[in-house]
Amino acid sequence: MDESPDASESGDAHGISMPEICREVGDEAEFVHPADMADHLENLSLEKQVCALRHMTTEDAAEALAELDGNVAVDVLENLDADVAAQIIAEMAPDDAADVLDELDEEHRDVLLEKLTKEDSEELRNLLNFDPDSAAGAMNTELILLEKALTVDEAIAHIRREMEDDKESPYYGYVVDEKDVLVGVLSLRDLMLARPGTIVGDAAAGQSVISVTYDTDKREVASLLSHYNFLAMPVVDYEGHIMGVVTYDDIMDIMHEEASADMLGMVGADPEESVDTPWTESVRKRLPWLMVNLFNSALSASVVYMFEGTIAQMAVLAVLMPMVANQAGNTGQQALAVMIRQLATDRFDQKKAWMAVLREGKIGIVTGLFMAVTAFLGAWWFTGNHLVGAVMGGALLCDMILGAVAGGSIPLIFRAVGRDPAQASSIFLTTITDGAGFFIFLGLATLFIF
Amino acid sequence: MDESPDASESGDAHGISMPEICREVGDEAEFVHPADMADHLENLSLEKQVCALRHMTTEDAAEALAELDGNVAVDVLENLDADVAAQIIAEMAPDDAADVLDELDEEHRDVLLEKLTKEDSEELRNLLNFDPDSAAGAMNTELILLEKALTVDEAIAHIRREMEDDKESPYYGYVVDEKDVLVGVLSLRDLMLARPGTIVGDAAAGQSVISVTYDTDKREVASLLSHYNFLAMPVVDYEGHIMGVVTYDDIMDIMHEEASADMLGMVGADPEESVDTPWTESVRKRLPWLMVNLFNSALSASVVYMFEGTIAQMAVLAVLMPMVANQAGNTGQQALAVMIRQLATDRFDQKKAWMAVLREGKIGIVTGLFMAVTAFLGAWWFTGNHLVGAVMGGALLCDMILGAVAGGSIPLIFRAVGRDPAQASSIFLTTITDGAGFFIFLGLATLFIF
Repeated sequence: MDESPDASESGDAHGISMPEICREVGDEAEFVHPADMADHLENLSLEKQVCALRHMTTEDAAEALAELDGNVAVDVLENLDADVAAQIIAEMAPDDAADVLDELDEEHRDVLLEKLTKEDSEELRNLLNFDPDSAAGAMNTELILLEKALTVDEAIAHIRREMEDDKESPYYGYVVDEKDVLVGVLSLRDLMLARPGTIVGDAAAGQSVISVTYDTDKREVASLLSHYNFLAMPVVDYEGHIMGVVTYDDIMDIMHEEASADMLGMVGADPEESVDTPWTESVRKRLPWLMVNLFNSALSASVVYMFEGTIAQMAVLAVLMPMVANQAGNTGQQALAVMIRQLATDRFDQKKAWMAVLREGKIGIVTGLFMAVTAFLGAWWFTGNHLVGAVMGGALLCDMILGAVAGGSIPLIFRAVGRDPAQASSIFLTTITDGAGFFIFLGLATLFIF
Repeated sequence: MDESPDASESGDAHGISMPEICREVGDEAEFVHPADMADHLENLSLEKQVCALRHMTTEDAAEALAELDGNVAVDVLENLDADVAAQIIAEMAPDDAADVLDELDEEHRDVLLEKLTKEDSEELRNLLNFDPDSAAGAMNTELILLEKALTVDEAIAHIRREMEDDKESPYYGYVVDEKDVLVGVLSLRDLMLARPGTIVGDAAAGQSVISVTYDTDKREVASLLSHYNFLAMPVVDYEGHIMGVVTYDDIMDIMHEEASADMLGMVGADPEESVDTPWTESVRKRLPWLMVNLFNSALSASVVYMFEGTIAQMAVLAVLMPMVANQAGNTGQQALAVMIRQLATDRFDQKKAWMAVLREGKIGIVTGLFMAVTAFLGAWWFTGNHLVGAVMGGALLCDMILGAVAGGSIPLIFRAVGRDPAQASSIFLTTITDGAGFFIFLGLATLFIF
């Protein structure tokens, strides 16, 4: 409505109150940490978010955008003028920029990439081609390379210059030969403590350099970085040429994602779901597993159906039956949780894995014995029939041992066949403990009570 | 048996083959990372572990010990000569040393502390007094303090000297006033880029320093550090005096612990359980929650008992009944998992929390409708009775909505009453979805079918 070119160019076309609100938010930005600014922005309306980013310095906007939740960042980028958006993208660390661009639809992404310098856009297109779950998908390409012929003093001067260009990760200098093959890693500490005049290649000599290839799963990178307590893990190609680094801040995010993925995956929710996921998307992602669960529980129900006659004669069996299944299910989930977390944090070998299943079996036997005695006495007292008590106790013991062993084995079996050890494991476990629990309980009852 | 004092003093009293084995392991130590060495040690017998540590340099032994699993480290320390053990403890970073000592029984701990210098033992006793789950319990007390009157060059020279003493965390210099009150934080980068001659206090002026008090929960410290992407978080007392720092490597361990704790706690296993926990201890820790689960499932069973007569008339109800409970339980666990992970990674306010419950309710309604229609058709086809189908569908819809809302609310309610949001949440959820599922299904059947 406002036709003044002046107002529309400064982005104030939407009304008179807008710029004040924006400037308010923008002013705060100077005093707060970008991570807090991002939190603050997430609570604002889209209009105010867009406005606020427009009024921040490009540097602040880039930092805040990198910290925003993926969905929010996409909305904001799509509603900013493409020129402003491209400036912010150019200012971001390449790995963060690639993460945000990866969420955009192709059309918007191409518009923004077109507006970048040829070098920047090529680098980002390159990063976008990598599997986002690989080391290359998580790596930062801004890193400090030290030619191995440099002296330590030259290296420090070089790092100082590079720092001025605001490289994200000056934790280590990566020593390379003339073909950019990674031959050593020197920390700032190593460099500051080395005798001046030392050749960088000599200072790094004899190191067994730890690196990952670009196609390594990012979870594996996280596990290695946490194992070695590194600040950054160099990423190389199969010829050993350095391609980038994955830094600890990205690793912390990966670890959070991983922990959530295990817990959510276990019960058949999408590994990346959070309370910010649109609820319709959650419905779409959860429904298939709920269908599988319904099918599986129909399988265990068909076991009950086999014994319909027994239940018709003695309805109290239907009262006790779910208790057996429930208790074995809980036992199995304890084993499942221990095993999934172990697989997430440790790379353990075949032998240790099966020792762990054996361990769960022993726990299942002893806790099963305790519960079986309790259930035997309880069911006897409740029904006045010691045979019902004995059947209940016996079925509980068998099903709990089965549950413990199944809970311990399912993640290992899933992993062995190349599946995610956590995904829907709880659903399959419940099918086993329900089906077997019903079968053993009603089977024993049919055999011994009538 | 070997009485030669020479052999027994060098620790070779147990047999002639021992020293060779040890030396073998010890020699390897020079070429491998301490974290890998620790992995390697964990696969050896206790005797070889002790032997190996004795033959490593004290520095290597200290690093390897810090990386060993708690149980293993304790066994090794108890079997090393106290003098050797004390030397290794003295060489470790104080936070790692305190962690290991915390696991030892009091007697062994006191013996070792007696052998340290007065200063070291006081520092460790001090650390041991803090709650191990607090910031102070996780902090490192070796840090670089910069008096605010120093120039940047003096500060760098100071850091260089401190680094030579092998401080664990030279990521930041902490700027303090004459009373050791923390007034600013400067990274190595800040210092290297500052104009020579700048006063440290001026370089840090205007910062709003982010720190935590010593009694902050270590999970909160992890969440803050990951939020701000810091390498280290300063820990202060209530007067602002700096006490130590919690570094990112400890935070990665805390994040692993936290993720495991949520998943294990949810199903009633001990939050710190792993496959390395002695199985008898797991039995002891899991039994109480299995008891609670048995009691809770008896509660839902008592609901079935109310309808014993209905089941006696129509045993097929006992076939379908567990399906309703199972499906609602799975729906609820999806909501539970989303909410627990959210609480672990985000500090969200009351409003956002209840919006998230509402979101789960909406998901419950829509997935419930899908499942209800499927179950209605399936049960109708299976029993030939459209009323059984309708009861099945209706009960499933109600119980799934209840499960979704309960799964979303339980962690929030637990948190509101000061409990761990995850602990045994799955057990309580199942009680609700089982009890309500049985009641609604059998209640509707009693009302409408007969």
